[in-house]
Amino acid sequence: MENFIFENPTKIIFGRETHKQVGKEVKKTSDRVLLHYGMGSIKKSGLYGQVVGSLKQADVKVYELGGAQTNPRLSLTIEGARICRENSIGSILAVGGGSAIDSAKAIALNACYEGESMWDFVTKKAKPSGALPVGVVLTIPAAGSESSDVAVITNDEGMQKWGYHHELIYPRFAVINPELTFTLPADQLASGAADIIAHVMERYFTRVKNVDLTDRLCEAVMKTVINNAPLALKDPGDYDPRAELMWASTIAHNNLLNTGRIGDWGTHKLAHELSTYSGVPHGAALAILFPAWMKYVYKEDMDIFQKFAVRVFDVYPEGKDMESIVLEGIDKLMHFSNSLGLPTHLTDIGMGSEAIEEMAEKTQLFGTIGRFMELDKQDVVRIFELAI
Amino acid sequence: MENFIFENPTKIIFGRETHKQVGKEVKKTSDRVLLHYGMGSIKKSGLYGQVVGSLKQADVKVYELGGAQTNPRLSLTIEGARICRENSIGSILAVGGGSAIDSAKAIALNACYEGESMWDFVTKKAKPSGALPVGVVLTIPAAGSESSDVAVITNDEGMQKWGYHHELIYPRFAVINPELTFTLPADQLASGAADIIAHVMERYFTRVKNVDLTDRLCEAVMKTVINNAPLALKDPGDYDPRAELMWASTIAHNNLLNTGRIGDWGTHKLAHELSTYSGVPHGAALAILFPAWMKYVYKEDMDIFQKFAVRVFDVYPEGKDMESIVLEGIDKLMHFSNSLGLPTHLTDIGMGSEAIEEMAEKTQLFGTIGRFMELDKQDVVRIFELAI
Repeated sequence: MENFIFENPTKIIFGRETHKQVGKEVKKTSDRVLLHYGMGSIKKSGLYGQVVGSLKQADVKVYELGGAQTNPRLSLTIEGARICRENSIGSILAVGGGSAIDSAKAIALNACYEGESMWDFVTKKAKPSGALPVGVVLTIPAAGSESSDVAVITNDEGMQKWGYHHELIYPRFAVINPELTFTLPADQLASGAADIIAHVMERYFTRVKNVDLTDRLCEAVMKTVINNAPLALKDPGDYDPRAELMWASTIAHNNLLNTGRIGDWGTHKLAHELSTYSGVPHGAALAILFPAWMKYVYKEDMDIFQKFAVRVFDVYPEGKDMESIVLEGIDKLMHFSNSLGLPTHLTDIGMGSEAIEEMAEKTQLFGTIGRFMELDKQDVVRIFELAI
Repeated sequence: MENFIFENPTKIIFGRETHKQVGKEVKKTSDRVLLHYGMGSIKKSGLYGQVVGSLKQADVKVYELGGAQTNPRLSLTIEGARICRENSIGSILAVGGGSAIDSAKAIALNACYEGESMWDFVTKKAKPSGALPVGVVLTIPAAGSESSDVAVITNDEGMQKWGYHHELIYPRFAVINPELTFTLPADQLASGAADIIAHVMERYFTRVKNVDLTDRLCEAVMKTVINNAPLALKDPGDYDPRAELMWASTIAHNNLLNTGRIGDWGTHKLAHELSTYSGVPHGAALAILFPAWMKYVYKEDMDIFQKFAVRVFDVYPEGKDMESIVLEGIDKLMHFSNSLGLPTHLTDIGMGSEAIEEMAEKTQLFGTIGRFMELDKQDVVRIFELAI
């Protein structure tokens, strides 16, 4: 086990009706809030009205900025910061999923920075000295951004998508009401489930030895998703499987599962490029790319891939050699993704090899990627090819 | 799943050599610290000198109070608060295990209270309005107090032992270096392992349904302890199993595992009385009493006891009826405790039925106990009798 520091300050407020408490939570941070959301689905669902009602009841003045899109854009976060500064807004409330939350985190950083934007932090030109407090009302179990220290932002110039980590951007609180997901389209729920599992896999596949407890905690979260995602899809109004997925999505990404481990995160970089190029949702991109990554790297340390197959996907090991067990585990992962309606090949989303060179090139912007196995451009090309 | 709020502010600093950072962590909270510890083992081991050295290097003025004993006494915490007030001490550093930490938490409450002591909070005569920040250097994996909101204190008058919960007493930070446990006596390590498992079992055995994720997280922690405690006892200088136990002890008690659940905690109350009466360590008391509690209550909901047997102790279920599986699970738990050298019957510690009435009476001080099954005095008597 590696030495580590673990500190996660996000207050989780979980359960039925909890979104109606959001006003008093925001009020603890500021009297003026920027309500930030996506493409308007919260207005159709009625959530917008309930959140604004709760804020007004708590005597919080509401400013708003919609338009956070899948793969949220840097330009919108610069606009958000301008609104915050011009109106002395002291707090940001993201209502939505990972895109709205990541966008809100970037606004929070921009608003306290005198330079142009937090992209200077991504490129290491500057360091942040502060951030506005961010609160969250979560509407989809997927990104885990509601209790993480990371924001994944796409720079409109050059369409580069990158994740930025800093302890300043842990949300102050996250309101998680599984009822808010009852109307979520099935493909978004499936993509979210793939995202949760991928967040755990990035941490699980490590070269660090003797990490028994976190191995088992990772397996617990993955098995929960595998059991509950199909139930959630089958009956969209069933509270319990959605509650399991929502709490799993938070725990998958709140840094508990990588305590003492060194995660990989190479596949996420590939998935960012695939999403940026094709528009495919993040979770679906991960469902396509993770099996390919596994096939490319498993020979580096078969023990952990065997453990994954046996403990997470219940591959029966008797009478089989290690490699067969590993491959059966990868096969079962793909089968699970397909059973949720997710793609597992580039051809499933109408792509072939045409963009591989370009995408692979972009993953190397800051050098090689991946910690389980260091991947240069040629490795990345081969992984994309395995995904065709 | 029940609605819940989860917020744990403790910063965990985990790994080799980490105790040497303690000075700079304390300095963030105050320039004057009360160093609080137990019966002097930290002086023999040399830890005392290293901690004081780190504090002085960080320019923190050190006051000290030793003497925190197993089942820490209220009277010492009143004395500690007096020292804090007279010297304008702004922070408390506990070096030790659960006793030193719980005692430090009580000092922290007393120091900010104008009444006599925090026992007024236990008896609900008053509410705390503040507490000094508490930091921890942990020396034994057991109590989980290093990242919990509870202090278990024994009132010298009447020898009542009670746990007090309040968010004010989450430690500000906990330094956890598994190397510090290399010299721990085997019986203390074994008792600690029993304490960790008991903390999980109190949360695991719940009447709340559909708590799949936290079921699995609980099982992960219990299996980690079952695998690693024997390894830690076998080779006291082996870092890894001790690291697993230390991190497991923290996670077992930091409130993550009871999110969405309602724990029982009846057995802890019985164990408090048994320890107060007999002086038997807390973990050993739990090793004696938990199997008896399980035998008394399992018919109330056999499903969860069957799950425990199969998933935690690998009881092979095929061809067995549910009750046999449940009883085999309890038997395996007792066998595990015995394998660590722990008692599992009152007779193992030289007791019979002589104190049962008196101990049972004291558990009912504030009414019936237990949430999985509500226990009145007669129930408690029967459980103690099953433990003979």
